[in-house]
Amino acid sequence: MKKLINAPDAVLQDALRGVEAAHGDRVRVSYDPAFIVRLDAPVQGKVGIISGGGSGHEPMHGGYVGPGMLDAACPGEVFTSPTPDQMTEATKAVDGGAGVVHIVKNYTGDVMNFDMAAELGRSEDIEVETVLTNDDVAVEDSLYTAGRRGVGVTVLVEKICGGAAEDHKSLKEVADLGRRVNSAGRSMGMALTPCITPGSGNPSFELGDDEVEIGIGIHGEPGRFREKVGPASQIAERLMTPILEDLPFSEGDRVLAFVNGMGGTPLIELYLMYGEVAKIAGEHGLSIERNLIGNFITSLEMQGCSITLLKLDDEMLRYWDAPVNTPALRWGA
Amino acid sequence: MKKLINAPDAVLQDALRGVEAAHGDRVRVSYDPAFIVRLDAPVQGKVGIISGGGSGHEPMHGGYVGPGMLDAACPGEVFTSPTPDQMTEATKAVDGGAGVVHIVKNYTGDVMNFDMAAELGRSEDIEVETVLTNDDVAVEDSLYTAGRRGVGVTVLVEKICGGAAEDHKSLKEVADLGRRVNSAGRSMGMALTPCITPGSGNPSFELGDDEVEIGIGIHGEPGRFREKVGPASQIAERLMTPILEDLPFSEGDRVLAFVNGMGGTPLIELYLMYGEVAKIAGEHGLSIERNLIGNFITSLEMQGCSITLLKLDDEMLRYWDAPVNTPALRWGA
Repeated sequence: MKKLINAPDAVLQDALRGVEAAHGDRVRVSYDPAFIVRLDAPVQGKVGIISGGGSGHEPMHGGYVGPGMLDAACPGEVFTSPTPDQMTEATKAVDGGAGVVHIVKNYTGDVMNFDMAAELGRSEDIEVETVLTNDDVAVEDSLYTAGRRGVGVTVLVEKICGGAAEDHKSLKEVADLGRRVNSAGRSMGMALTPCITPGSGNPSFELGDDEVEIGIGIHGEPGRFREKVGPASQIAERLMTPILEDLPFSEGDRVLAFVNGMGGTPLIELYLMYGEVAKIAGEHGLSIERNLIGNFITSLEMQGCSITLLKLDDEMLRYWDAPVNTPALRWGA
Repeated sequence: MKKLINAPDAVLQDALRGVEAAHGDRVRVSYDPAFIVRLDAPVQGKVGIISGGGSGHEPMHGGYVGPGMLDAACPGEVFTSPTPDQMTEATKAVDGGAGVVHIVKNYTGDVMNFDMAAELGRSEDIEVETVLTNDDVAVEDSLYTAGRRGVGVTVLVEKICGGAAEDHKSLKEVADLGRRVNSAGRSMGMALTPCITPGSGNPSFELGDDEVEIGIGIHGEPGRFREKVGPASQIAERLMTPILEDLPFSEGDRVLAFVNGMGGTPLIELYLMYGEVAKIAGEHGLSIERNLIGNFITSLEMQGCSITLLKLDDEMLRYWDAPVNTPALRWGA
């Protein structure tokens, strides 16, 4: 295993030190319990929004802390759920009296610990609403999940809820909007190579020199099937067909198309994939109103990509376009 | 070789189709000759800025086309210089009567072809100034280069010149500023793994399972030495020491610190490296005024990073902070 780290058990703390050095003018880093929080939190009267999950998916979630998106993020160790005390402290740090939304990817550990944190928050008279993301159409139930896994749509939920909270929507309105985004989004991913967690030092799975895994999870959980690597156009078909059928997406739908890199895939390949996705979307009569292309929810150095389609309505579009000022997503500010 | 491509010889054209599908609302893509140009080019009275080079370094340069940065970018095939006709057509497309700056990384093919394009431009009565970047302290002369290689500082030159051009500085002012940025910037890179070009299908070099190459070039050109992989703190020292000694950087200097990923390295490791860089900079009494962390000048899926330090003056700082609106770098707009 070759990585730019000091020691496997120091990765999270060392990376947080880097975040603090880089963005200390806009976020505060708490080391114990570990969370990253907007410097101006809590914003009085604004719904607070937090998320969290295992590290190794950067920029998710710490890179999305800032005006127009998250108020705080709780990073666990690599591919390990954060603990309830991280979430509880973050919840308290961002509560400006209007309640707090927890955005939770559907993995068993995350769900359990966020549930506990929500209860602890409520016991301190903080209103908490949970928005669960479960947009991965690849498989029902998985290595760390009952039901569908939460993947790419999480980025979109965080941005759109962040915009709505900044616009002083109520706790219920922000949470309902987040749930609507999750319901209208579908994703599927694939891998060319596995990743290696610093703790294990070993590949998360084995894959032949000419094989790809279709429907991979962001921790290397098994997908639907393996096959010989084909052209990008075929890989795009393999991901787009189940996505399009699942919602289903129909002719005339306005969508946001998101091609996400798993961390180790060159951007030139992601743009090439986007060309294939746009072609297929066009053939199905979808109108791509917005797009996002790059590494936004990753699996360490895994090579591969995921595709997310979100069926847009006017409110989602408005809050997607709203100003955002975070290390990883920034516009209009 | 496993890549998200259709065919090795179609990579550039297919990727350009993706760029057009994604960003056709802001750029125009010419396929033959290949270049990406601002939709509103030429901007009358503004100095035009173009750059270019082999593909495989994305988002450089196509991702930097937009208000506040480049007017056009000329992508060659992967790791292959673009041709003079690409550069000449791009030069003509962005000339708004105030002349055009060519930002050229110091590689023999790029320099030769941009020289030819500058002459062709002048023969059509377009004033052209060339800004050469050669900030890599690792080696003197290299596989594709006489003198030092142009690497990370190129991103900073493009942003700062772009800001100055938008502020209606003259051709000479923009070019002189670009040269000053290059002179005040130093970089060095390292690799954990090689990359594989689609054309060859083979790793660009061989590296042992426990080895790193210090001083690597962005096409896998040899660096200074190889050694057993050590902790991130040691790798940061290996890169920072030659950089700091070369300018030299002195106590009290205001700097921009840029930790760049080679394409295949997880963002969590880049933040961890940034923490080490900030620590060393602090020990040397440097004041980091701005930072940039992420994949900005890459080598396909190579794992590794480079560090660039730029000694800032007020004008550089002003134009670094100026609004920019490109696919890969965006703020204040």
